[in-house]
Amino acid sequence: MSLGPVSILGGTGHQGSGLAQRLAKAGLRVVVGSRDPRRARETVAAWSPAVDVSDNGSAAAGADTIVLAVPFDTVDAIVDEIGGRIREGAVVIDVTVPLTFAGGRMAFVDVPEGSAAEHIRARLPPSALLACAFKTIPAHLLGDVDLPLDCDEFVCADSEPARERALALVAALPRLRGVDVGPLARARSIEHLTALAVAINRRHKRHDARFRVVGL
Amino acid sequence: MSLGPVSILGGTGHQGSGLAQRLAKAGLRVVVGSRDPRRARETVAAWSPAVDVSDNGSAAAGADTIVLAVPFDTVDAIVDEIGGRIREGAVVIDVTVPLTFAGGRMAFVDVPEGSAAEHIRARLPPSALLACAFKTIPAHLLGDVDLPLDCDEFVCADSEPARERALALVAALPRLRGVDVGPLARARSIEHLTALAVAINRRHKRHDARFRVVGL
Repeated sequence: MSLGPVSILGGTGHQGSGLAQRLAKAGLRVVVGSRDPRRARETVAAWSPAVDVSDNGSAAAGADTIVLAVPFDTVDAIVDEIGGRIREGAVVIDVTVPLTFAGGRMAFVDVPEGSAAEHIRARLPPSALLACAFKTIPAHLLGDVDLPLDCDEFVCADSEPARERALALVAALPRLRGVDVGPLARARSIEHLTALAVAINRRHKRHDARFRVVGL
Repeated sequence: MSLGPVSILGGTGHQGSGLAQRLAKAGLRVVVGSRDPRRARETVAAWSPAVDVSDNGSAAAGADTIVLAVPFDTVDAIVDEIGGRIREGAVVIDVTVPLTFAGGRMAFVDVPEGSAAEHIRARLPPSALLACAFKTIPAHLLGDVDLPLDCDEFVCADSEPARERALALVAALPRLRGVDVGPLARARSIEHLTALAVAINRRHKRHDARFRVVGL
């Protein structure tokens, strides 16, 4: 599947910056969406000439694939901001995880919909397509763009075009396998997998814990 | 760590039978606890002379390590039955997952405590120690005792002796690595991992999906 320009909202952040750089390195046209495009341009200048910068609304309006790489606690504001500007048939890729680390203690944010993905689904216009991906891969590892990923990444969606787009995006990164786990409601379990990776990192003083499915 | 006799309650069931056979094969003394010891003896006769059979209460009373391998919907009854007979310092290993498959649809049972493990903790006598293990490894694979496991299994507990016992039990099985993920409350995420394995099996028509942690 050929991928057009990919907009990454929050593309200079923790998860977004590694993703933006790796996707650009893989040959995709990447647009970083930012609340502060001037500052974002300074950051991105060091990355790659294939990465453009824009405000979040314009980045969302101009792309067929929009990655939501903002922290979960700012997701409502950004979805409300961009919702009306998403193109017909565009796919939103949710990479957020509803975890907090207040006082150094990891905890899930109470999300009435059951997962960050379902929360976002409930706020997006019905015409926008949504898939999950890149929720479990450590930001730290993504950002160290020359390190091989060597793991699996989990994808779920309720629509086939969204699922295919997310799997194609995962497949664009070398040594990363996309694993389709079914409908969007599976995001609850994917988000718990992220919590498990964080717990393993903390317990074993690592930074890069991630998963591979055996038997598939 | 040397392991004394291990009692497996529900030891002729779906998850228990594979575990009992593999632990016996690894050289441990295994007692299968059953509601119907006469029938269980017939089943176990084909396995190994190292496996004894007993009623659940006696099996619990006689062991330092008690594996709860009954379906989650019978766990309350069995914990109430054996609770008072557990030895001081004995470790209970919970392998249950609160999933139902009514109408072919996988769903979590609503567990107010947050996980099967925390539910069991709330019903066990305070003196009994509790750890989780063997929640994610497919019963199908466990039961095919000559197939290599080649994966990781996740352990959590609130007490060090319980954690060590569970890790030792996992380490007793060849080509299986135990991964300590911290306190008992992490069981929520481990149980979601099982749901993810089931979802992957269903989606991809497999039976043996399981996990390995990369970067550890």
